[in-house]
Amino acid sequence: MEAGLQVLQAVTAGKNVHYNLSEYPFGGAGIDQSGEPFPASTKAGVLAADAVLLSAIGGPKWDQATIRPETGLLQLRKTLGVFANLRPTVVNPALIERSPLKAQIVADTNFLMVRELTSGAYFGEPRRLTQQDALDTIYYSRQEIERVMKVGFQLAQTRKQHVTIVDKSNVLATSKLWRQVAHEQVAQFPNVTVDDCYVDAMAMNLLSQPNQFDVIITPNLFGDILSDEAAELTGSIGTIPSVSLGKGQRALYEPIHGSAPDIAGKGIANPFSMINTIALLLKHTFHRPELATKIDGALTRTIESGVVTPDLGGSAITTEVTQTVIHNLE
Amino acid sequence: MEAGLQVLQAVTAGKNVHYNLSEYPFGGAGIDQSGEPFPASTKAGVLAADAVLLSAIGGPKWDQATIRPETGLLQLRKTLGVFANLRPTVVNPALIERSPLKAQIVADTNFLMVRELTSGAYFGEPRRLTQQDALDTIYYSRQEIERVMKVGFQLAQTRKQHVTIVDKSNVLATSKLWRQVAHEQVAQFPNVTVDDCYVDAMAMNLLSQPNQFDVIITPNLFGDILSDEAAELTGSIGTIPSVSLGKGQRALYEPIHGSAPDIAGKGIANPFSMINTIALLLKHTFHRPELATKIDGALTRTIESGVVTPDLGGSAITTEVTQTVIHNLE
Ligand SMILES: CC(C)[C@H](C(=O)O)[C@@H](O)C(=O)O
Ligand SMILES: CC(C)[C@H](C(=O)O)[C@@H](O)C(=O)O
Repeated sequence: MEAGLQVLQAVTAGKNVHYNLSEYPFGGAGIDQSGEPFPASTKAGVLAADAVLLSAIGGPKWDQATIRPETGLLQLRKTLGVFANLRPTVVNPALIERSPLKAQIVADTNFLMVRELTSGAYFGEPRRLTQQDALDTIYYSRQEIERVMKVGFQLAQTRKQHVTIVDKSNVLATSKLWRQVAHEQVAQFPNVTVDDCYVDAMAMNLLSQPNQFDVIITPNLFGDILSDEAAELTGSIGTIPSVSLGKGQRALYEPIHGSAPDIAGKGIANPFSMINTIALLLKHTFHRPELATKIDGALTRTIESGVVTPDLGGSAITTEVTQTVIHNLE
Repeated sequence: MEAGLQVLQAVTAGKNVHYNLSEYPFGGAGIDQSGEPFPASTKAGVLAADAVLLSAIGGPKWDQATIRPETGLLQLRKTLGVFANLRPTVVNPALIERSPLKAQIVADTNFLMVRELTSGAYFGEPRRLTQQDALDTIYYSRQEIERVMKVGFQLAQTRKQHVTIVDKSNVLATSKLWRQVAHEQVAQFPNVTVDDCYVDAMAMNLLSQPNQFDVIITPNLFGDILSDEAAELTGSIGTIPSVSLGKGQRALYEPIHGSAPDIAGKGIANPFSMINTIALLLKHTFHRPELATKIDGALTRTIESGVVTPDLGGSAITTEVTQTVIHNLE
């Protein structure tokens, strides 16, 4: 978080960008402060904000908590109404060797996964857990599908005009509706081409032909799985940002990596994910794409100069990397 | 199917193996014959059999059918009660170059995914599809989880004594029960070590460290996705078999690939998947592991001699490959 805010300050200095920052406890920090991952004061704070920037939320310390950090995350997403989670997967040529995939397969990969974030299996009711059995509900209303489709199709218009719809419509009722509503969009977005892919086939295609995709629109649960698979394609999940959009301005920005308990506190966490998240913030909330581009350039120069954290094969610590990025903003 | 049966005949000739074969229409063929993917005569036939060998079930011709081929497949699994679907992922050194993953990452991969097959999101009730919304239910009883865990843990005892439990217990009630019941097994299988992995992390780990796994036990829907991802690791899904086991003898054998409409009828389908499925049949139903090993050897020699179908980079047709395998059985 600190790295991200430093870069935000540096890149906006003298650029006529004005913002107020407020800080609130959340997740594990919320539990420590008030026994709840999403304290009332935090809720009031995020609802008053234009954008929320979140760092990782959990850790072994809170694994046995009565209300776990993850519950707070789901409440936060629902409270903000951020139904469209955008996760870009871009293979940076300078990092292509980090990918577990062969370079010739993963080269030129540049897609955007749009994951529905506030419905589906994550929020469906009823749910039940007893000693004898358990039950969850996957639910989607037409309107919930429509609004996330619109976001995905609109983004496709600004990209390669192609959408891939992910579902399991050969088995699930919710997936049948998902696919049906997706195809209804075609009338409104005639320049966007659409194809369908079952979620299992998609798990394969991400490996065999990752560079064939542009925008991928997926229900919540499938998106959780596929977006992490996609992140691993780059071999550097410590670099990947995400933003979740809702109605109007409201947005939730988060790096996709977790709290990485194995390295927490060692000062070697890769700040690229948070810095890339700041770039998304500048683009989507501040409407200053040129500042986002500036960050992209600084990151590339930093990678090329080899000042990277151990997860990317380097030996730099978080603060060194951050200072180098800031230096490279010039 | 033809290739598989020829190999079965060849490998068992003079080996004191006796079996009766009956053929029944199913899937698309069932629809053509009687309007249903799983006709009553087929149901009677499979219930009278010790083992069922299935080839692919669908194709564009039946995509708009009132009852789709897939529905028949789910009914067949339920009818046979085959709740544990076993999908081995073994990277054959002779085919390692086919993998989309770098050789050093995928080398020595040899795990077995055990997918629960007759419950979960695939069969949970209620389900609903209207113009306005849709709903599916994920359901698991303790007993359904216990029985598939036992199969997985028993198999781990014959392998590297390690089990990885896949779930999304930070979100789903059914996953919480899944993980809980999994850990209850430890008392009965003290020599087996167990770890847990969220399904999203698993989608990453299959790419970053596929050779770290032994037995992976997963709910139905997650297993659908992860087993296809796993299949793609080998870069040759045309080679992978599966068997589904139930109570007692009953078993359902299927290659994991689909009907491949793009090459159907061209005579170039890779017979390895079906031939490997025959090897599983010899092992699990006939209890003749030495005949399965014989097939393994013949397949390896065939691959080494380069007589393989186009999907593996060769130019041989199905019948040539099959004849070569049979020849290599000697
Ligand atoms: C922490 C968990 C609840 C969360 C999710 O499943 O959505 C995470 O995996 C993610 O993808 O943001
Ligand atoms: C065809 C489909 C219903 C089936 C499934 O989802 O189980 C297939 O994908 C499989 O994995 O065997």
